[in-house]
Amino acid sequence: MVVCALIRMSGRSVVNLVRLGTRAVSLLKGSSLRPFHTPLRTASSQPKAGFKPGKVAVVTKTTRYEFEQQRYLYAGLSEEDLKQLLAMKGSSYSGLLERHAIHTNNVEHIVKSLRREGIEVRVVKRGEYDEEVVRWADAIISAGGDGTMLLVASKVLSKDKPVVGVNTDPERSEGHLCLPVRYTRAFPEALEKLCRGEFRWLWRQRIRVHLEGTGINPTSVDLHEQQLSLEQHSRAHRITTMDSQQRTGMLHDSFSKTSLLPIRSLNEIFIGESLSSRVKLNAFKLHVNLLLHRASYYEISVDDGPWEKQKSSGLSICTGTGSKAWSYNINKLAEQAVEEVLKIGKSQTGLDIPLNRDIIEMVTDEYNESLVFSPDDRRLFYSIREPIINRVFSSSQQRGFASRVSVRSRCWDACMVVDGGTSFEFNDGAIATISMSEEDQLRTVVLEH
Amino acid sequence: MVVCALIRMSGRSVVNLVRLGTRAVSLLKGSSLRPFHTPLRTASSQPKAGFKPGKVAVVTKTTRYEFEQQRYLYAGLSEEDLKQLLAMKGSSYSGLLERHAIHTNNVEHIVKSLRREGIEVRVVKRGEYDEEVVRWADAIISAGGDGTMLLVASKVLSKDKPVVGVNTDPERSEGHLCLPVRYTRAFPEALEKLCRGEFRWLWRQRIRVHLEGTGINPTSVDLHEQQLSLEQHSRAHRITTMDSQQRTGMLHDSFSKTSLLPIRSLNEIFIGESLSSRVKLNAFKLHVNLLLHRASYYEISVDDGPWEKQKSSGLSICTGTGSKAWSYNINKLAEQAVEEVLKIGKSQTGLDIPLNRDIIEMVTDEYNESLVFSPDDRRLFYSIREPIINRVFSSSQQRGFASRVSVRSRCWDACMVVDGGTSFEFNDGAIATISMSEEDQLRTVVLEH
Repeated sequence: MVVCALIRMSGRSVVNLVRLGTRAVSLLKGSSLRPFHTPLRTASSQPKAGFKPGKVAVVTKTTRYEFEQQRYLYAGLSEEDLKQLLAMKGSSYSGLLERHAIHTNNVEHIVKSLRREGIEVRVVKRGEYDEEVVRWADAIISAGGDGTMLLVASKVLSKDKPVVGVNTDPERSEGHLCLPVRYTRAFPEALEKLCRGEFRWLWRQRIRVHLEGTGINPTSVDLHEQQLSLEQHSRAHRITTMDSQQRTGMLHDSFSKTSLLPIRSLNEIFIGESLSSRVKLNAFKLHVNLLLHRASYYEISVDDGPWEKQKSSGLSICTGTGSKAWSYNINKLAEQAVEEVLKIGKSQTGLDIPLNRDIIEMVTDEYNESLVFSPDDRRLFYSIREPIINRVFSSSQQRGFASRVSVRSRCWDACMVVDGGTSFEFNDGAIATISMSEEDQLRTVVLEH
Repeated sequence: MVVCALIRMSGRSVVNLVRLGTRAVSLLKGSSLRPFHTPLRTASSQPKAGFKPGKVAVVTKTTRYEFEQQRYLYAGLSEEDLKQLLAMKGSSYSGLLERHAIHTNNVEHIVKSLRREGIEVRVVKRGEYDEEVVRWADAIISAGGDGTMLLVASKVLSKDKPVVGVNTDPERSEGHLCLPVRYTRAFPEALEKLCRGEFRWLWRQRIRVHLEGTGINPTSVDLHEQQLSLEQHSRAHRITTMDSQQRTGMLHDSFSKTSLLPIRSLNEIFIGESLSSRVKLNAFKLHVNLLLHRASYYEISVDDGPWEKQKSSGLSICTGTGSKAWSYNINKLAEQAVEEVLKIGKSQTGLDIPLNRDIIEMVTDEYNESLVFSPDDRRLFYSIREPIINRVFSSSQQRGFASRVSVRSRCWDACMVVDGGTSFEFNDGAIATISMSEEDQLRTVVLEH
């Protein structure tokens, strides 16, 4: 490790040399098991030394093949039935198997590369990933796509634990949160760069949520867990199983309490009506509430400004990281729409605005690029999805930056969804205060070219 | 009735006089119970005589007060508990009661007005409204908001049965599909105009859907029904209760069958992933699949054109009526976005485009107005909601008109939602062909000023 660093030093400035020397001394004084494990921390800074963790957890995604297999085996179908069913649907059993094999091989490649460096590796399926794994590991590798990265990040609440994403199916996954696709089959190169310090830390700002006035303790529902047992639902929606006196007592006691939710959002918080169902249990009959496509009603206050009543398809509040995800899709414009706006602008102003394909493309690209901002930016970005403006409701800004956004639910049966994966009940009267705090950052890497 | 018509005639043209005379003669020859019940039919035509049905069904909405009451009574709370709970949530019990009273009074006003004219009236709650009511009635009045109109229309499959919407809470409901709000408290005026022929018929084109390759008989789930019993779910999702042999046999037999769904969409068909949950039943344990915010994958072919793979937040296919509803909200632009496009256009072209509030407002309004088209237009309008364009997927037109749209599902767990109220399973391999047919029109009225 020291040799790597010394060799790199020859190309550095005097200042860095001095800093490195100082750092090396202090590190040698401290724990020597992993000499360059914790470099000096500055936002998006270049570490003065390499990074080589002793213990790495590799969290793997569930492939579609595995999902379909579980789904149909659960329904009592055999592997042969599964094959036929998929064939009839025009899907390819062999196609799913192929993608599953690609993912599995890429995971093996990562694991072998790590072990070859003498790193202790633990491979963990997404269903088995928990706080214990996070505590055990010096670093966590997400082996899947962006969804798997979000899951991995969701259990890392400390800003010191590094998380690295590897896209195990570049042909199918976008992998915004993962290393560039060339490292998927050349993982040793990535390890080499990490070892040599040829990377920088990127501390991605995340969102925290305070929730008050819900009446019951806010219990989350994990939406990626394909199955939720009856008992879990009972616990999650306790109000229906309490007796009247308990209920009233609990309502009074806990109503005005504000809780800081035990989640940190890496992409966005989405608030909306009817995106999930609620299963209400009755001793004798099962009732399922299915509400669909109801507009979301709420009140919003940006940076402690005046409250405004709104009606829309929902509200997204994202981070710089998330500005390339759902928020981007909510706000971006198609060339067709930009062309139409420019055409109308042309006819309304009488100006001779050139409307060739290049201009339209450039305006569209510039518009869409302006929606993206840096992951380490300390600001939130809120967007109202499909605002409903009519005789009854109005809306000022459809989107903008803020430090803090408060939302009061006026919804019948709504939820607050974190990174598309965990949801909290957010019904009439509940108030969510959404903000950022430096301690919630997620430590990730950006490799140098 | 004849007197009304003759008095009105004095202001009409000679042509109309002749037509009216001819009509009067033919009507007198026919059934005289309701002499002017069925005027000559031409699209959006002026009837040559008035309209006075003998039997009218008034279908009423469920108010929020009724909903909350049912919800909490179901959970075992008393009216007093309900009051306290709402107060704690910052909601107003008295507010809900007030809106409930307004609606109820308006319904009474309608009913009294009808009976005063000697019309037989049957008041039917939305939960009791069925095909028998439709058969019984000469005309149906929807007493509620647009949602109630959609429900009423959903069970009227004949193009001859008139449907009239009355907005029973103008302060809270938009009522696009209802009569102008002034008739809510002055319903006798509306009746008078109908009687005198001072209105025209508007035949609203609706959408029909052919579905194939689903593997099981397509059974719909009524999303507005607040409760769905266990038995209904069993029937709806039969595959899990059949034995293996039955299943394979059924799959082979019914897979390639094309069914014309027993629905006609007045607003739109929306196809998307994960908008609802599926309850999968197992003898011993209840499992709930909750999938959220998954992108929808599908292939689309417009007017028998080439198939294109797409990924988005969903696909909307609407009618002229629906072009003012969800489709409008999906496609409309906020002034903020239009201003940004014009600003970038200005900087890219170097032209001195004036960007004052008026210009921006005019361009925005013209853009948004272009999204709306006539309810009797025979075309469909498709829109891709939040298209995802990246390394993996691309998309040509984000929206456009068509006579026919075919969609092949590539979704894990998706559905096709009709008018935001009824959903059909639409999973991997299923193909929906969406089109319009003249016989699917809905007969509604437009009163003259």
